[in-house]
Amino acid sequence: MTAKNRSETVVGFIGIGVMGKSMALNLLNGGYPIHLYNRTKEKARELLDQGCTWQDSPAAVAAAADVVITMIGSPKDVEAVYLSADGVLASARPGTIAIDMTTSSPQLAQRIYRQARDLHISALDAPVSGGDIGARQGTLSIMVGGDLEAFEQALPLFEIMGENIVYQGPAGSGQHCKMANQIAVASTMIGVCESLRYAEKAGLDPQTVLKSIAAGAAGSWTLSNLAPRMIKGDFGPGFYVKHFIKDMNIALESCKEIGLDARGLALAKELYDRIAADGGEYLGTHALYQQY
Amino acid sequence: MTAKNRSETVVGFIGIGVMGKSMALNLLNGGYPIHLYNRTKEKARELLDQGCTWQDSPAAVAAAADVVITMIGSPKDVEAVYLSADGVLASARPGTIAIDMTTSSPQLAQRIYRQARDLHISALDAPVSGGDIGARQGTLSIMVGGDLEAFEQALPLFEIMGENIVYQGPAGSGQHCKMANQIAVASTMIGVCESLRYAEKAGLDPQTVLKSIAAGAAGSWTLSNLAPRMIKGDFGPGFYVKHFIKDMNIALESCKEIGLDARGLALAKELYDRIAADGGEYLGTHALYQQY
Repeated sequence: MTAKNRSETVVGFIGIGVMGKSMALNLLNGGYPIHLYNRTKEKARELLDQGCTWQDSPAAVAAAADVVITMIGSPKDVEAVYLSADGVLASARPGTIAIDMTTSSPQLAQRIYRQARDLHISALDAPVSGGDIGARQGTLSIMVGGDLEAFEQALPLFEIMGENIVYQGPAGSGQHCKMANQIAVASTMIGVCESLRYAEKAGLDPQTVLKSIAAGAAGSWTLSNLAPRMIKGDFGPGFYVKHFIKDMNIALESCKEIGLDARGLALAKELYDRIAADGGEYLGTHALYQQY
Repeated sequence: MTAKNRSETVVGFIGIGVMGKSMALNLLNGGYPIHLYNRTKEKARELLDQGCTWQDSPAAVAAAADVVITMIGSPKDVEAVYLSADGVLASARPGTIAIDMTTSSPQLAQRIYRQARDLHISALDAPVSGGDIGARQGTLSIMVGGDLEAFEQALPLFEIMGENIVYQGPAGSGQHCKMANQIAVASTMIGVCESLRYAEKAGLDPQTVLKSIAAGAAGSWTLSNLAPRMIKGDFGPGFYVKHFIKDMNIALESCKEIGLDARGLALAKELYDRIAADGGEYLGTHALYQQY
């Protein structure tokens, strides 16, 4: 990507889910022409009505774009979209920046980076946190791995989509950082669920307990934001159990690779697998409360 | 305790440790005459120099006081100080308010409450969080169980020692609330340690990772306040491993009683027992990082 005006920098966007839709819309409103592809075209309708251009495949998006952004489901999808014969790397021009914002495998990010580099394409891994609200409001936390130079070139786009944008290091580092995030979330969620259920079973009023403990050493984002919903019995997402299990599987795989015995994470995974087995894949992650 | 001026309300204080000393000093500076007892008299020297009155036993403190406050080591100590033949309940006048601010067993608090009630003594359980800094600055969170009327009578004293003062319900509820606090802390600490160690082993800079994750869904008091000390390798207390193990033992006992399978708590207890076995009882709780 050479230095151009926004209106001359074509952004390819692949994956128009809840997150991707808001992110692409923010980029469009920020002045970037958007070419997009989504497995289900119908989900892209609103963006197309607003002036985005449809392309029939990831390859076609890549061929048209200066920067390609992907926000898709799983590492398997990421692998196919980037590395298959009609994928992004096969069609992108040299000089393209390819940014995977999916939460995906660090090892896959490194593999894509290396193959991209051989084609003079700069691959960044840039997963996010902040959920659908963060995506809509452009306040995501974006954790970026890859070459620093490519990070700096992509920064104007990141700044439209997010607020807390941090370069974490070489390829895979964005994904590793997101895994560190999910690992902290996993056991914190266990602590909050056990704490609240304890309070309830001990005959206390959980709301009153929150008044005592939420601001002190037991405090967490989960306790402040999800505990009130647990207490109300509102287990809608938020963040899907299904997606959290996907992330924990990646994290556990990665722990094995780097030699970390993360027993809290393993326990969380076991408990969440039970939620899924009980049919709760599309509940919010705080549905863990029901397992206690 | 009848309505009196502060200077006419004698406060008996038993247990002049790091916490108790600051709490007693704040009450003294707040205008209350303090009669005190401590197992090791030397540790009370500073308070005696400032005008507190020494008594030779818990019973003597109780006999002299309108309100008795205890801040001692373990449930066993609490039991002895309250229920033994020369303990608080044997000597306190009817109408006395007896407040145990030790983190102790909810079941013991209920037992003391019942025996006290038969003697027309009002027992409150009122454990705290906020550590030595909170004790010194009078900003403790105080979680109170017992009769509401006694709570209201004791409130002026609580307001000198703390800031976030919450009545949690009948006898034992203060201790139960503190257990809920420690249960949340236990697994949150696991999550933070696993997250940071993962980041480190993955080759990231943990400080940079904190920039990405501390303000989002992975955020916690532990991540913001203890992770920087873990990264620096500074494992001094803070809160002693030894005391946290004591609290977790009480919590696990209480979980058994109320029928909660708190596996995160059990895992934390197992990991902390290892720290103790390695000679780390007097490290801070964030020394859990070293177990990963």
